[in-house]
Amino acid sequence: MSENPPHDDESNSNQHVDTANGNSSDDDDFIVTPYSVSGEVDYEKLLERFGADPLTDSQIERFPDHPMLRRRTFYAGRDIDRYLEASESGESHALVTGRGPSGPMHLGHVLPLYLAKCFQRETGATVYIPLSDDEKLLAKEQSFDSIGEHTRDNLRDILAVGFDPERTRIVVDTADADVIYPIAVRLAKHLTPATVEAVYGEQGTVGLQFYPAVQATHLLLPQLVAGRQPTLVPIAIDQDPHVRVCRDVAAKEALPVDKPGALLGRFLPSLEGPGKMSASDEAASIDLTDDPDTVAETIRTHAYTGGQASLEAHREQGGDPSVDVPFQYLRFFFEADDEELERIAEQYRSGNLLSGELKEIAIERITDFLGAHQRRRAELGDLEDELEPYRLTDEECRQALERAGVPPSPF
Amino acid sequence: MSENPPHDDESNSNQHVDTANGNSSDDDDFIVTPYSVSGEVDYEKLLERFGADPLTDSQIERFPDHPMLRRRTFYAGRDIDRYLEASESGESHALVTGRGPSGPMHLGHVLPLYLAKCFQRETGATVYIPLSDDEKLLAKEQSFDSIGEHTRDNLRDILAVGFDPERTRIVVDTADADVIYPIAVRLAKHLTPATVEAVYGEQGTVGLQFYPAVQATHLLLPQLVAGRQPTLVPIAIDQDPHVRVCRDVAAKEALPVDKPGALLGRFLPSLEGPGKMSASDEAASIDLTDDPDTVAETIRTHAYTGGQASLEAHREQGGDPSVDVPFQYLRFFFEADDEELERIAEQYRSGNLLSGELKEIAIERITDFLGAHQRRRAELGDLEDELEPYRLTDEECRQALERAGVPPSPF
Repeated sequence: MSENPPHDDESNSNQHVDTANGNSSDDDDFIVTPYSVSGEVDYEKLLERFGADPLTDSQIERFPDHPMLRRRTFYAGRDIDRYLEASESGESHALVTGRGPSGPMHLGHVLPLYLAKCFQRETGATVYIPLSDDEKLLAKEQSFDSIGEHTRDNLRDILAVGFDPERTRIVVDTADADVIYPIAVRLAKHLTPATVEAVYGEQGTVGLQFYPAVQATHLLLPQLVAGRQPTLVPIAIDQDPHVRVCRDVAAKEALPVDKPGALLGRFLPSLEGPGKMSASDEAASIDLTDDPDTVAETIRTHAYTGGQASLEAHREQGGDPSVDVPFQYLRFFFEADDEELERIAEQYRSGNLLSGELKEIAIERITDFLGAHQRRRAELGDLEDELEPYRLTDEECRQALERAGVPPSPF
Repeated sequence: MSENPPHDDESNSNQHVDTANGNSSDDDDFIVTPYSVSGEVDYEKLLERFGADPLTDSQIERFPDHPMLRRRTFYAGRDIDRYLEASESGESHALVTGRGPSGPMHLGHVLPLYLAKCFQRETGATVYIPLSDDEKLLAKEQSFDSIGEHTRDNLRDILAVGFDPERTRIVVDTADADVIYPIAVRLAKHLTPATVEAVYGEQGTVGLQFYPAVQATHLLLPQLVAGRQPTLVPIAIDQDPHVRVCRDVAAKEALPVDKPGALLGRFLPSLEGPGKMSASDEAASIDLTDDPDTVAETIRTHAYTGGQASLEAHREQGGDPSVDVPFQYLRFFFEADDEELERIAEQYRSGNLLSGELKEIAIERITDFLGAHQRRRAELGDLEDELEPYRLTDEECRQALERAGVPPSPF
């Protein structure tokens, strides 16, 4: 899940979207596609449009306890029950959560990885982390060298999360092309340009037209490597069309896989609050490598608050935590204790807690979190050595190619 | 070069071509595109349309002596002089001649390989032979298993030609995806859907939309592996658009390669003669594995002749070698001696040589040729072992990826 779209890791300046999926009807006043979000999003209406199911209370209880679920940041999904059944009964189950390596990773990029780590720790989920350096080269005005540097840098952040290497596979599209490309070709056999254009809009290059087949490969890879199993893709709801394309492809091809499920989330607020829809490349953000002073400075300077215009007005009328970005950070991830969170909200609403004070609470929590992340990152050795246990083995590649029906290499 | 188009290895029933390249203008009455040829082809006009140059007498003399050049089956080209200069001065130079493995190889498929072998023997040309199993899966109503079997079978025929393994590389798109796909992505960065549609027409799958980037990779591979050098692509003229797309891509990307040149040929006649434009899958043809009886039976039954309707008329009016398919086989490839060929033509025109007798001459030559090919094929051992010396080495792959600007693998 990314911060407010257009996403740093998904937006594409060469593209415009012209699709019925999630588009505004006459009655609605918001648009949500993988490449563009505008208007005041009605998350319930979006589910109707996309044909996904809201999470029930009992489903949320069956997931590992995590603020992002408990507080319904993730609020909907597809094929959730099958995933939960497998996770409860100790059967194989997988998560896929990827990264587009076109820049340094921000705080918002890493939170879904920590959620996946939590699921892995609690229920033994296998986690696949594909890095789409191919798509980034095609979609961005960046050299392959630059994408390559971001890839190596992002990999260090992914490793710093601390996944269990026994149950985690990291895939880089160009470096793992020997397994990714033949499977993508197999999945592309019935993926028409019309389908891709309907979901993603017109593409600027033939590489981007093909890329949805690569992405479908990512989502099916856990099952192709290790056999049929429920696979969940935690993703912001605007990215749901990616999952739907893969589900269609999986259904169309006679492959030994189930359709991947989706865990659909609301958008994380951008630091500068709602209505700030400029490209996130330019927007202020908290990088994973920011030191405490930078984090503090960034939040103090840029974070949108729900406070009043003057101290006097705030003391009198109180603040609005529902739009206050520092509070939302606490709610999404950084304050796990519901009672403590409610106490902070209450203090803010009453005017006892000032916006600046609320910012300092968020700064402390985020700084602690980043400090731990950065310590683990600094302890990493040579990248190649660190990645080795996370790489697909030759046998895993062979299995995946065989299950996808790719003929064995004649070499 | 294939037999009369639509080609067994290039046609695509899902495609229709709508392109200005080679299309009929008001004054012309023939159409030539990579997927469709109709009307009486005016080979000179085609050069004007495509913007290629006719071969000069002196260029033909500078090529290794071969009936296909001497008799102007190959009659035009692009950047021919640069190739000839390198081949004469002992500098590196390369040929690329591929194969789409969707069925058994016919006689017409293997002749360009023997031409390439001749060039390799005479001037030391490096020969690259890409097998596009990815494109065949996407374009044909065939399973990947079936394509895989044809790939292995075709590879035996390619090995039987007897290339020098020191100077020959065989590439299979899915099996060599680790090097092919990242380079194709690099080349696809500026390859637009509009360009592909203009040249190839609408495509049925996103895989076929991407495939021209893979094909461009094939044509640039000799230079990416071993450095800038003249590269010649011997190809029937209807396939020239493939080369033009690659030349455009090579010019657009700042890569250390020259545009590949082209050696453009007339169409080999199909066995059943002109006007027989049914899909070549169904047309009679001579397979490389046919035994002498089958070859004889096929030619006796199906070969179109230039003879007269009755023995009497033939003795009186004589035959027409210019449309006689057995004679054309001799002219294209199987009778290297110009005087002997002219003697046969003269005998045929005079009515002394009957169509049946001319067929027997062709049967004998083709049977001898196939016998030698089949003996070499039968002597091959395990396919994997035989292919080993023709495979790109790890160092060659690394060089190609580096020259294409693909970042080094983080693994």
